[in-house]
Amino acid sequence: MATAGKVITCKAAVAWEPNKPLVIEDIEVAPPQVAEIRIKIVATAVCHTDLYYLLESMPKDGFPAVLGHEAAGLVESVGPGVTEFQSGDKVIPLFLPQCRQCRFCKSPKTNQCELGVDAGHGDVMGPEDSRLTCKGKKLVPFAGTSTFSEFTVVNQISVAKIDHAAPLDKVCLLGCGVSTGFGAAVNTAKVEPGSTCAVFGLGAIGLAAVMGCKFAGAKKIFAVDINPDKFKKAKDFGATHFLNPKDYDKPISAVLAELTAGGVDYALECVGNVGVMRSALESCVKGWGVCVLVGWTNMHDITTRPIQLIAGRTWKGSFFGGETRVGQT
Amino acid sequence: MATAGKVITCKAAVAWEPNKPLVIEDIEVAPPQVAEIRIKIVATAVCHTDLYYLLESMPKDGFPAVLGHEAAGLVESVGPGVTEFQSGDKVIPLFLPQCRQCRFCKSPKTNQCELGVDAGHGDVMGPEDSRLTCKGKKLVPFAGTSTFSEFTVVNQISVAKIDHAAPLDKVCLLGCGVSTGFGAAVNTAKVEPGSTCAVFGLGAIGLAAVMGCKFAGAKKIFAVDINPDKFKKAKDFGATHFLNPKDYDKPISAVLAELTAGGVDYALECVGNVGVMRSALESCVKGWGVCVLVGWTNMHDITTRPIQLIAGRTWKGSFFGGETRVGQT
Repeated sequence: MATAGKVITCKAAVAWEPNKPLVIEDIEVAPPQVAEIRIKIVATAVCHTDLYYLLESMPKDGFPAVLGHEAAGLVESVGPGVTEFQSGDKVIPLFLPQCRQCRFCKSPKTNQCELGVDAGHGDVMGPEDSRLTCKGKKLVPFAGTSTFSEFTVVNQISVAKIDHAAPLDKVCLLGCGVSTGFGAAVNTAKVEPGSTCAVFGLGAIGLAAVMGCKFAGAKKIFAVDINPDKFKKAKDFGATHFLNPKDYDKPISAVLAELTAGGVDYALECVGNVGVMRSALESCVKGWGVCVLVGWTNMHDITTRPIQLIAGRTWKGSFFGGETRVGQT
Repeated sequence: MATAGKVITCKAAVAWEPNKPLVIEDIEVAPPQVAEIRIKIVATAVCHTDLYYLLESMPKDGFPAVLGHEAAGLVESVGPGVTEFQSGDKVIPLFLPQCRQCRFCKSPKTNQCELGVDAGHGDVMGPEDSRLTCKGKKLVPFAGTSTFSEFTVVNQISVAKIDHAAPLDKVCLLGCGVSTGFGAAVNTAKVEPGSTCAVFGLGAIGLAAVMGCKFAGAKKIFAVDINPDKFKKAKDFGATHFLNPKDYDKPISAVLAELTAGGVDYALECVGNVGVMRSALESCVKGWGVCVLVGWTNMHDITTRPIQLIAGRTWKGSFFGGETRVGQT
């Protein structure tokens, strides 16, 4: 493109400081350096994790920043050494990179990469790598993607090339929510045919988890949310039963235990709330119940009684769909 | 035997009330009723769980009781309907029964039984089923076994027949500690060849867990205990590295992370302490680390940050060796 090699001036939503609204600003996006790709973001979604970092968790030196990690776009230009992408490719930026060389990338047990985020700290694009500036200040990259901008620069290991026919305004959801929820059910929980599942929280991730449970052959899928307006859409995605915890005067785990003769086989927490995380675990049947944490939060401890696990429940988590990656079984 | 059908008077260690020493008393043991077996206990071990119930957790109506659940003995007589056992059989009482008919018994995913203990409440031998009395009072059965007595009566689904050549003073340990620790490593953690393991606590269960890790082909087995006198025996059982948390001024999880490039593949908590349970989990490598709770406690919550699980760790528990049972794969 005509812009290759030049600084691009474009609009971005800048997070100048914690707990303050994002501000639409004109920013400068430098050309990609070695192994980097400059992407024209066509569509970006908003994920709860963006808000979580803005409100609660971003380190103080993490500002000013450009948030955003669930997007799709077109390659504008590539830096030196980039051979697998070219201008015009449709792509989805990845907040979990794949260097293909580290022990995590080489293991079929995880979709994580040693160069990626770890507990929210560190990333393939560190503050010093930022190609984004505004009013003379470097904008700190977020999740290696920073998609709340008309253009962004990411490392080539943080990009997935997609089909040219893909509608970018829809597939942007594969950049986080859909992959995260669907994968949590299929790859991490490993939902089995004929099983009983419960999905807590019916946002994008929860709906994708419901879809994953249905895809995996679950017989019953309990959709749990305190907002009953979400039940219709959950039904469209495959949920078979609907529970509003506000309708009961006992814990939802006790309600589910009664409805399922002891608890569900699989529970997926898609809220990001430590109280719900405990409820989800304790909604599982003893012996073999599996609870997967999908929602993102890290400000407080999760808690439960040891017997919940000793009695045979498994508590695990899923990150961007977990475990199995494309080309691996 | 000549005692069949008669009340037997024998010695037992009676727990009259919580937090008080057991008292050796003469007790009466009634003949076994339908589906029950009266056993002459030849050897019984003491497990931390007995102490735990005495000191902390037994319900107030759980006294007076006869504790004990890790034993071996000889069938003295059987009640009506018992066909698989006969007088003279060598047996091990089981604190987890196997009715062979419930959904838990029929599932390969758990070794639990719907008729067995659940969170310490209920049991195949309830208070009303007790065949043990002392000074006119019924002695509450414990764990369906009550082996701190020269004779006890248990349900036939709570008994395993063993080889006539088995030395009872040794195989009594299969009634809890050895099966629990070994099984936790092999069946629940599913330790893989070449992996790195850490075992927290080097009592009987911990040593059996070390043995299980070695059996499963672990390459490195870190033995962790605050009593270094236990390291020699742990070495005999297969441990390769030895850590006393008191020797370090940082958390043992951080020490293990440094020694193993990020954490161990499998960690087994064999203490029964919620602080150690957290340490064990956080000693696991992100991506695929598995922490199994084996030690028994339930007075306090276990806690950790959600990211510990979301980053790919699995927290689970094991009960009497977990999951796979004889004859199943």
